[in-house]
Amino acid sequence: MDTDGDLDLWVREVYRNDLVGLSFKVEKTLFSGQSQYQKVDVVKTRHHGVMLLNDGFVMLSERDEFVYHEMIAHVPLFVHPSPKRVLVVGGGDGGTVREVLRHKAVERAVLVEIDELVVNVCRKHLPSVSCALDDPRLEILFEDAVKYVGRTKEIFDVILVDSTDPVGPAVLLFDKAFYKKAASILGPDGILISQAESPFYDEDVQRSMLTNQRPFFKNLQLYLFPTLTYPGGHWSFGYASKGLCPVGDFDPARVERSGISTRYYNPRIHMSAFVLPNFVAENLSGIVDPIAYRF
Amino acid sequence: MDTDGDLDLWVREVYRNDLVGLSFKVEKTLFSGQSQYQKVDVVKTRHHGVMLLNDGFVMLSERDEFVYHEMIAHVPLFVHPSPKRVLVVGGGDGGTVREVLRHKAVERAVLVEIDELVVNVCRKHLPSVSCALDDPRLEILFEDAVKYVGRTKEIFDVILVDSTDPVGPAVLLFDKAFYKKAASILGPDGILISQAESPFYDEDVQRSMLTNQRPFFKNLQLYLFPTLTYPGGHWSFGYASKGLCPVGDFDPARVERSGISTRYYNPRIHMSAFVLPNFVAENLSGIVDPIAYRF
Repeated sequence: MDTDGDLDLWVREVYRNDLVGLSFKVEKTLFSGQSQYQKVDVVKTRHHGVMLLNDGFVMLSERDEFVYHEMIAHVPLFVHPSPKRVLVVGGGDGGTVREVLRHKAVERAVLVEIDELVVNVCRKHLPSVSCALDDPRLEILFEDAVKYVGRTKEIFDVILVDSTDPVGPAVLLFDKAFYKKAASILGPDGILISQAESPFYDEDVQRSMLTNQRPFFKNLQLYLFPTLTYPGGHWSFGYASKGLCPVGDFDPARVERSGISTRYYNPRIHMSAFVLPNFVAENLSGIVDPIAYRF
Repeated sequence: MDTDGDLDLWVREVYRNDLVGLSFKVEKTLFSGQSQYQKVDVVKTRHHGVMLLNDGFVMLSERDEFVYHEMIAHVPLFVHPSPKRVLVVGGGDGGTVREVLRHKAVERAVLVEIDELVVNVCRKHLPSVSCALDDPRLEILFEDAVKYVGRTKEIFDVILVDSTDPVGPAVLLFDKAFYKKAASILGPDGILISQAESPFYDEDVQRSMLTNQRPFFKNLQLYLFPTLTYPGGHWSFGYASKGLCPVGDFDPARVERSGISTRYYNPRIHMSAFVLPNFVAENLSGIVDPIAYRF
């Protein structure tokens, strides 16, 4: 019992191989269920709002999800000159498509989520995250994204891989075969963003992910942002494009013209996110491309 | 017992008011003692090297201390045109002075640490951090820094407040009276850097700290960096100067000329660190000064 007379309930995630543990004080469990793919839990935390966990790993919290979702969506959508068609792989919570659909240029978005339970649970318990899932521009498919990318005839401007860690079904989303197919359904200015783990803890994943993308993309980068709910607190996305440089080809004025208001992202955050600390740059030396910074 | 047959030993820090918990797998305790100020523990962790804890709060780990220490030291020392005299408040582990003393311009550094036990324990168990404590340019004083700053007749170019959280004796290091005295012993180009907590969790501390500095400094900023061992993973320093802008008055070429090699810091990291996410900029609106970015 804690001082309020409640059970002293915490949810604790231990990152792979006992690397580090992160715990959050829980007030109550809102949902607990099992799909054919994973265990899905939603808890109300004391200090981080509602939290979604898959197989015991924190996927997002209401308190800080805006950082991840703004950074996965606005960076490529403000670099691509005309992002009309966007494919989101994973991301069944809806946070990524919420940010994507704030761009008026977007005419059609396709969300391919393998696990319908995640979407249903987030619709009910995380309305601030899932609020755009009924947008008429959005089609939701419950399907293995690897298969979808292999069979679709559509061409996309931007693909966002909002995946879990490279374990279970998500392993194939870090694979060369997937990147080859993804590149083949991207238009000439196409951009692929991929969830790329921790720059401190996942040096190997980052190297292999970008190396697997290399044959199919002209410009490869890694960009960084903070997170409260993933171990290490510093997280990253891979940026892969058919040619557009995320800094050199970025027009900061577009952000203001868009009228999109954000809580983390802004034009200087966009450009700064690609500045790599020395230890990250050394890890990715010869894999990421040089950037023509204006500073 | 874990799979190795060892005790499954973890050290777990719960940040104030059950905000979040961070745990690290421990192999063994190297030191455990009590000074008149605090409990001091040193543990060998499985994945983060040797770790120092004061009163159960993680102060540093061998794995990521380079980020904090490079950012507290190199940012002001590469902005100040001629940093000859540097005062370090707290920082008894020696990591901050290690980075300070890599600058050839520094003729004298004074380390004022209240707790001699911290210095002794780090000398023994954290040699990669404490390795510069015998530099002939360094004087170490075991004294309350508030009293030292009140009594000294010396003038410093840079003051680095490498303090704990604002609890216990460190409370006074976040106080207006301390900043007034600190400003009075800084030269005309003087810069004061202060440990400034988490931008996600400590909005109030950041506002009050900078507001307390405001009357005595012309240029106030906050800058950001990642950490593996502090809750939230995103941490900050306050920058307060008699006039120098940390971006506008920074010459990136000086870093290369210095020959100082770093694992986190570089000139673009320096400039990017001052770019604030919208939610941080809003929290500090009207308190920090505008920056004339070149990007």
